[in-house]
Amino acid sequence: MKILTFSSSLRKDSVNSALIGVVNKILEEQKCEVNTLHFSTFDMPLYNGDIESSSGVPKGALRFRDEMDNSDGIIISSPEYNYSVPGTLKNAIDWTSRITPKAFKGKHFFLMSASPALAGGARGLWHLRVPLEGLGSFVYPEMFSLFVNETTFNGHELSDKTLRTNLENNIKGFLNNINTRCK
Amino acid sequence: MKILTFSSSLRKDSVNSALIGVVNKILEEQKCEVNTLHFSTFDMPLYNGDIESSSGVPKGALRFRDEMDNSDGIIISSPEYNYSVPGTLKNAIDWTSRITPKAFKGKHFFLMSASPALAGGARGLWHLRVPLEGLGSFVYPEMFSLFVNETTFNGHELSDKTLRTNLENNIKGFLNNINTRCK
Amino acid sequence: MKILTFSSSLRKDSVNSALIGVVNKILEEQKCEVNTLHFSTFDMPLYNGDIESSSGVPKGALRFRDEMDNSDGIIISSPEYNYSVPGTLKNAIDWTSRITPKAFKGKHFFLMSASPALAGGARGLWHLRVPLEGLGSFVYPEMFSLFVNETTFNGHELSDKTLRTNLENNIKGFLNNINTRCK
Amino acid sequence: MKILTFSSSLRKDSVNSALIGVVNKILEEQKCEVNTLHFSTFDMPLYNGDIESSSGVPKGALRFRDEMDNSDGIIISSPEYNYSVPGTLKNAIDWTSRITPKAFKGKHFFLMSASPALAGGARGLWHLRVPLEGLGSFVYPEMFSLFVNETTFNGHELSDKTLRTNLENNIKGFLNNINTRCK
Repeated sequence: MKILTFSSSLRKDSVNSALIGVVNKILEEQKCEVNTLHFSTFDMPLYNGDIESSSGVPKGALRFRDEMDNSDGIIISSPEYNYSVPGTLKNAIDWTSRITPKAFKGKHFFLMSASPALAGGARGLWHLRVPLEGLGSFVYPEMFSLFVNETTFNGHELSDKTLRTNLENNIKGFLNNINTRCK
Repeated sequence: MKILTFSSSLRKDSVNSALIGVVNKILEEQKCEVNTLHFSTFDMPLYNGDIESSSGVPKGALRFRDEMDNSDGIIISSPEYNYSVPGTLKNAIDWTSRITPKAFKGKHFFLMSASPALAGGARGLWHLRVPLEGLGSFVYPEMFSLFVNETTFNGHELSDKTLRTNLENNIKGFLNNINTRCK
Repeated sequence: MKILTFSSSLRKDSVNSALIGVVNKILEEQKCEVNTLHFSTFDMPLYNGDIESSSGVPKGALRFRDEMDNSDGIIISSPEYNYSVPGTLKNAIDWTSRITPKAFKGKHFFLMSASPALAGGARGLWHLRVPLEGLGSFVYPEMFSLFVNETTFNGHELSDKTLRTNLENNIKGFLNNINTRCK
Repeated sequence: MKILTFSSSLRKDSVNSALIGVVNKILEEQKCEVNTLHFSTFDMPLYNGDIESSSGVPKGALRFRDEMDNSDGIIISSPEYNYSVPGTLKNAIDWTSRITPKAFKGKHFFLMSASPALAGGARGLWHLRVPLEGLGSFVYPEMFSLFVNETTFNGHELSDKTLRTNLENNIKGFLNNINTRCK
């Protein structure tokens, strides 16, 4: 089973990228083939209908579509910006949604967030579900929002055992739901 | 009274820009000073925390802040992309929210949308309220979502009299709420 | 395959109940066993933690749990009240969510709405997804919102062929996703 | 200035009612006249359009309307049930929204929540804004969500000084915005 994972932060030292590192270990424990990309791989301009008319959809969006097509599931760890989805991630969805046939239809997503705020970025994930589900993706009901502090995360591993087990169970549930066991 | 108006579409021939044209006429009828800008005036890159650390907030965001500071109220007509806020507009809010003192706190917004879909873009506006209100802006309760077709809008004026009156009443209510009458 | 269907309106002459009638025909065409109930079957008081402590969960909530447990999927047609979920339906979810083991976890839902308003009740459905998904249900990405007027619905059947085909395809996709074909 | 305050929990020993106690002290410090009611004052059945047609709007809804009409502002502390608004509170809004002239139009609300969960009930408040604003109420942008534990709240007073100051500033801002100073 192939899983695409990325953090939707462009920052080099992003806590969401660090959380993707933890998920990648869990996926490998589950014998998945992991494809981790930096969000800059999907670099694209701000959406402009006139650019679309004259030049079509940008390379970054086509790459995003291709990487999703080559995956059985997609895991995103996203920061929350201003109580909602980062404009950067929404912009990537907006461009990619313009491709025919529909790039998001039938895809399987698991959503995570990490933040030093108490809610751990959970509000942004609820907003992120909307365009993904509206575009026909299956977004796994459970989500993982990490309130980052000294007792929960050391940058490499979840320090709290209950949290580690929760995330593992979420991932196992997500993989099961895609209906093929990782081998 | 000075009102900043813009459409959050980058397209030249945007139905949201056309709707801003109608609003501008209403504002002038109300003796307001209207400042209409094309959304490209607030051109900025995709948000990246590393760029912010090294180079600060981009010019487009500072300009957005300045134009808001110079206004008594702000009217945005926004397309709905994928059931939510355009990534482009959210990105502009994300960058501008990084400025100190807080650029959105206490500002007064009226939100509109135009779309050939039946809901007229209303869902996107409900998502747009969240970052604006979370950042301390007063977003006027009533919003105007236009289902665009041959009987409602000819590109210059609302063809339906009830709709025109509704929009006028919304705008008057919004201006009253800012608490100064236009003179 | 057994499908539970109900309208979340308590009204006798509800357009949502009428839409459930259309769905029931489609389900029977797909050889499903249909279990249609009136929402009053799940009659329960307003949620009160003190009542829960003294008397436990009411019969209506236990019945709702039982009917969901006996189904492979659940289809709700819900009116939109004030841009969101009817308090009545939310109250039923609130009570039923108090039962152990978790009543909603892993259940499969398809959501519909019918309304004489242009958006056809779609906004309420987006709010309805949140508690259901938060409680671990799989809510099918596609939803069906019917703008009710003379050309779309005669009270017994969808008058518009494209709408009828869309609904059929939604239902087939939903049933497929539950992973067992109706026989 | 008269402020109506209530917790939307029917429980006798509700942490949201306790938080209302703190707010009442702040309002009295600001020389406001405080009108605190138990949510059961607005007792009403589950919304049913047939009951409305035959018997009209219930007494509890008329009482809610009257108390709002007699107030300059309304402060609600609401629990979060299943990531959203309690069905009980939504049901009260649904009934009261049926009264003519519109009961919520132009009213001023400040929203709070208290919860032992990390997010402090904040997600429910974002959902609560939607029907209130959709009905024409001014909901103050800032909201106060209390993560209740031993260090934040002793049941009578906010133990954390920063939190107490934040709440005070929120309330002062809310009162100022209603445009009359308490005397």
